[in-house]
Amino acid sequence: MAGDVKALIFDVFGTVVDWRSSVARIAGEFAAQNGVPATNWDQFARDWRNRYQPSMERVRSGELPFTKLDTLHRMNLDEIAAQYGFDVLSADKLDQLNLAWHQLSPWPDSVEGLTLLKSKYIIGTHSNGNIALMVNMAKNGGLPWDVILGAEVVRQYKPMPETYDRCCEALGLAPAEVMMTAAHNDDLAAARARGLKTGFIPRPDEYGVEQGRDLEPTQDWDVVATDFVDLARKMGC
Amino acid sequence: MAGDVKALIFDVFGTVVDWRSSVARIAGEFAAQNGVPATNWDQFARDWRNRYQPSMERVRSGELPFTKLDTLHRMNLDEIAAQYGFDVLSADKLDQLNLAWHQLSPWPDSVEGLTLLKSKYIIGTHSNGNIALMVNMAKNGGLPWDVILGAEVVRQYKPMPETYDRCCEALGLAPAEVMMTAAHNDDLAAARARGLKTGFIPRPDEYGVEQGRDLEPTQDWDVVATDFVDLARKMGC
Repeated sequence: MAGDVKALIFDVFGTVVDWRSSVARIAGEFAAQNGVPATNWDQFARDWRNRYQPSMERVRSGELPFTKLDTLHRMNLDEIAAQYGFDVLSADKLDQLNLAWHQLSPWPDSVEGLTLLKSKYIIGTHSNGNIALMVNMAKNGGLPWDVILGAEVVRQYKPMPETYDRCCEALGLAPAEVMMTAAHNDDLAAARARGLKTGFIPRPDEYGVEQGRDLEPTQDWDVVATDFVDLARKMGC
Repeated sequence: MAGDVKALIFDVFGTVVDWRSSVARIAGEFAAQNGVPATNWDQFARDWRNRYQPSMERVRSGELPFTKLDTLHRMNLDEIAAQYGFDVLSADKLDQLNLAWHQLSPWPDSVEGLTLLKSKYIIGTHSNGNIALMVNMAKNGGLPWDVILGAEVVRQYKPMPETYDRCCEALGLAPAEVMMTAAHNDDLAAARARGLKTGFIPRPDEYGVEQGRDLEPTQDWDVVATDFVDLARKMGC
């Protein structure tokens, strides 16, 4: 099933790390430390995340020049700060909260699976997260990436076709030698359209009770695995 | 001495890996396998390398658009192929020889020193080598980088000032939080001019008997170490 694959590139938010419970936990701790009343931090995490795609769409459409995700996250935080009582805090304090995205916890199988995959393949990020965000997250969570690729290297956001092309080109590999791995069917569809191999892992808890999508593969992806350790086994590691 | 440093970025060719003896060895093996007569492969390695700076200067000057180092290496190989008997081989064969630069061996202390440094700091490449070259070299040699930065990310070659600025910005760090580490005084001078910290390690065998430079630090660099393990100790690891 692995065929000629030499590198696996990964979606990160939701696929490798659990952004929802991590942001909820970090925001709750941050609020308590800064005298902000407790509220539904899971809802806060989802509200913040819900502004992610619309903000990247402003870059994809050309309305904004390329703007790294840390900056988009910060703009989006401003939009919801008042609703969650954070508007009483200084801009510096909100900058600190914005780094929650640098501290997202891996799913329980991520580090073990990536470590297995790394023994046989190049493993890299192909995330919309910027370089510093990815590097700090990897240091915090022990993610053993060989290379950080993605939006900041390409200066464009997924699922634009050039993001997949450019990742393969940066690795010096043909698209069929690179497997896009994600918990999101739309990311894989965009990768397949550019000739990449595809690997799907469901992450049914990504959005919590709200999750109504990506519970199952919607196409015959090249590899479908239950988690990263299962993926590594299916890739011959 | 480490001060506020959070990341070390490294020159790679000559500083982390021994390009001269690696290219000489690989070229010699490749020649023997392909019926090309033996010659002075150390001289071949140095001749190939001598075309490195002039070829990047064509990019820095604007004569060429950004062109990745694999491509410059390949153009430079064409210039010296006849002199070393490689002109009898096909372009595909020369493409294969060009990958010698992806297989350079680390100096004996590099992996141990980098592994120590990685426990406390972000460690990354800030090389003129392209991403695939750096990733493949790391996989071949066991170099434990957190992040691959450098020419292909910036789309410009050292020692242009923006290359140092952009590395720091990609890491989300102030220049004084980043230490440029190199066996080359000119690289460190360019980094210091942009506000980075500087670390010097002499590599007196880089050029072999021809070496007439970089045997000693020429400025009071922030850290001067005998090798990477000594550097790690001096950085508190």
